[in-house]
Amino acid sequence: MTEIEVQLQPRYSVQVGKDLLETVQVPHARVALLADAAVLETFAPKLAVSLERGGSSVSIHALPAGETCKTLETHARLLSSLAQERLTRDAAVVSLGGGATSDLSGYVAASYLRGIAFYAVPTTLLAMVDASVGGKTGVNLPEGKNLVGAFHQPRGVWASLDTLETLPEATFREGAAETFKHGLLANSSLCDRVLEPGFSATSANLESTVSDAIQVKADVVARDPHEAGERAHLNFGHTLAHALEAFTHHEISHGDAVGYGMHYAAILSSLAGGDDLTHLTRAFLEYQQPRVLPALTWETLEPFMARDKKADSAGVRFVLLAGLGKPKLERVPNALQLEAWRAFCADLKLESR
Amino acid sequence: MTEIEVQLQPRYSVQVGKDLLETVQVPHARVALLADAAVLETFAPKLAVSLERGGSSVSIHALPAGETCKTLETHARLLSSLAQERLTRDAAVVSLGGGATSDLSGYVAASYLRGIAFYAVPTTLLAMVDASVGGKTGVNLPEGKNLVGAFHQPRGVWASLDTLETLPEATFREGAAETFKHGLLANSSLCDRVLEPGFSATSANLESTVSDAIQVKADVVARDPHEAGERAHLNFGHTLAHALEAFTHHEISHGDAVGYGMHYAAILSSLAGGDDLTHLTRAFLEYQQPRVLPALTWETLEPFMARDKKADSAGVRFVLLAGLGKPKLERVPNALQLEAWRAFCADLKLESR
Repeated sequence: MTEIEVQLQPRYSVQVGKDLLETVQVPHARVALLADAAVLETFAPKLAVSLERGGSSVSIHALPAGETCKTLETHARLLSSLAQERLTRDAAVVSLGGGATSDLSGYVAASYLRGIAFYAVPTTLLAMVDASVGGKTGVNLPEGKNLVGAFHQPRGVWASLDTLETLPEATFREGAAETFKHGLLANSSLCDRVLEPGFSATSANLESTVSDAIQVKADVVARDPHEAGERAHLNFGHTLAHALEAFTHHEISHGDAVGYGMHYAAILSSLAGGDDLTHLTRAFLEYQQPRVLPALTWETLEPFMARDKKADSAGVRFVLLAGLGKPKLERVPNALQLEAWRAFCADLKLESR
Repeated sequence: MTEIEVQLQPRYSVQVGKDLLETVQVPHARVALLADAAVLETFAPKLAVSLERGGSSVSIHALPAGETCKTLETHARLLSSLAQERLTRDAAVVSLGGGATSDLSGYVAASYLRGIAFYAVPTTLLAMVDASVGGKTGVNLPEGKNLVGAFHQPRGVWASLDTLETLPEATFREGAAETFKHGLLANSSLCDRVLEPGFSATSANLESTVSDAIQVKADVVARDPHEAGERAHLNFGHTLAHALEAFTHHEISHGDAVGYGMHYAAILSSLAGGDDLTHLTRAFLEYQQPRVLPALTWETLEPFMARDKKADSAGVRFVLLAGLGKPKLERVPNALQLEAWRAFCADLKLESR
């Protein structure tokens, strides 16, 4: 088992290892366990038993599976459930599931009585290395992804690697996107490990790979908890990714969208004068095998990019890589964005321009 | 004009004086002005002109009047409006109206893109001395008042006293409740000034009275921004008040409910061994002339009290006064709560017990 300390106020730790569900206990008399419907039968009962052994009285709430739970309607429904159970300020929310589950659950915890304690038990690779660290919580609007939310740090995170073995292989590969991204940003050996033949949920080095990926994010977040600066770098690849997700109404998964988004951002970085890292992002797509993109033109996509949260009234800013481990936030002329899009389509043999 | 510095991070100031609407300007290219429907025709255009003269492009959004705006539905509708206008992180929300307007508007600002700048222009006495300082924002649930929200400090507040002159006299008197409460908690001369014959929106000493009442709250909030301790004292009278509001579905106003709640809390304080201050709270009710309470029994009321946010799993805690200027937070045995309720009903000649 590996423990990563996240140096925030208050500081908390992320446990990474096998069979951790049996060890999860929290110092709260009452716990609302918010579980993705997909793990309701498998992991939720096990986690509830562990929490109750620790002295907590637990109520289990099922969330719509995956990204569909991230709505203000589900947020409102859960808040009413917590109020009907008369949970008080000393109660806690524990989330169990992927990144969408912890985004929604964390926002419920942030909102109820203006904030109660939150703990996360991520069950996907993506959630382990991304959503469970950093305190970004929130939901989507019909107008775009993650447009509503709060910063609300978890008090503890348990990344139980055995949960990954039950996932379809495609979900694991999809989830490797954020791990690979953290490699590009600050630890290139992570990229090597992801691209090693056979990287999977049963890889012998999985614990150290996941831990190292979490460490990259923990370091960045500790230096910039509210995204005043450096933290925006974690959005490498996310401007196109969020646009693809919104455009396809989330038919494309976040991991796959980030896979495409990183390749686009690498092309854009190189056009803007940075090192050419497109061989890495292309190799990642070959490993990831993301869902094929629907036909879409720059004209239809561009409005979705303009809605990016990193935009200010002067326009969209992109995270670019000057080289491996050298991210920066920059405005990019529209003409260059379009040129990169054309190169992206040509490289991936996409029909549409 | 009087300026009160609120010593928070970041610090901000509250301006108190006449004809301030003409002076409100903020350093943001885009502003969403959220205005109570009741002031949409009167004050909103004036405020918008002032903001635009300061270089901001302003969109005006009408809110349902009064407490009815404090729902998750209105919150969701406004968030979508902001997204449709493509407001970015450097935009601001400005609220114009009473306490409910600033509670809802502040929560919209706290939630949109995980938090954008917020400014308040309160137009009721209650909002000036209470809601506009301290950063508590939020909405009600069907299950109870203020059960959802966030701490989100304003960047600036303008309390323009001329707006009070357009209010019905009953609304002014109702709003005097929080001013009186701040007097009981920390500045007894405020109580004297409120109880002086003829205290009204045109009183000569209104600016200093409002400023002193705001100063009490600003001091408490600066010492305890997230209600870890002392700040809970500001809830003196609010446990019964919130129960009365929930029970009557907000047919009774917040100010009137707090008027009753303070008298109940004064009786409870005295029964629990504190000084007898009931002559003061009774005199305030005589000045305030609150709406008559409907018939209600302790059995129907008690469940609404148990839902109080100051409750933890061990039960409800009350703010009591050991004496003038000496508040404390304490658990009170159920039998004593009931005894105080009987005394309260007898004193006010209420039918129901």
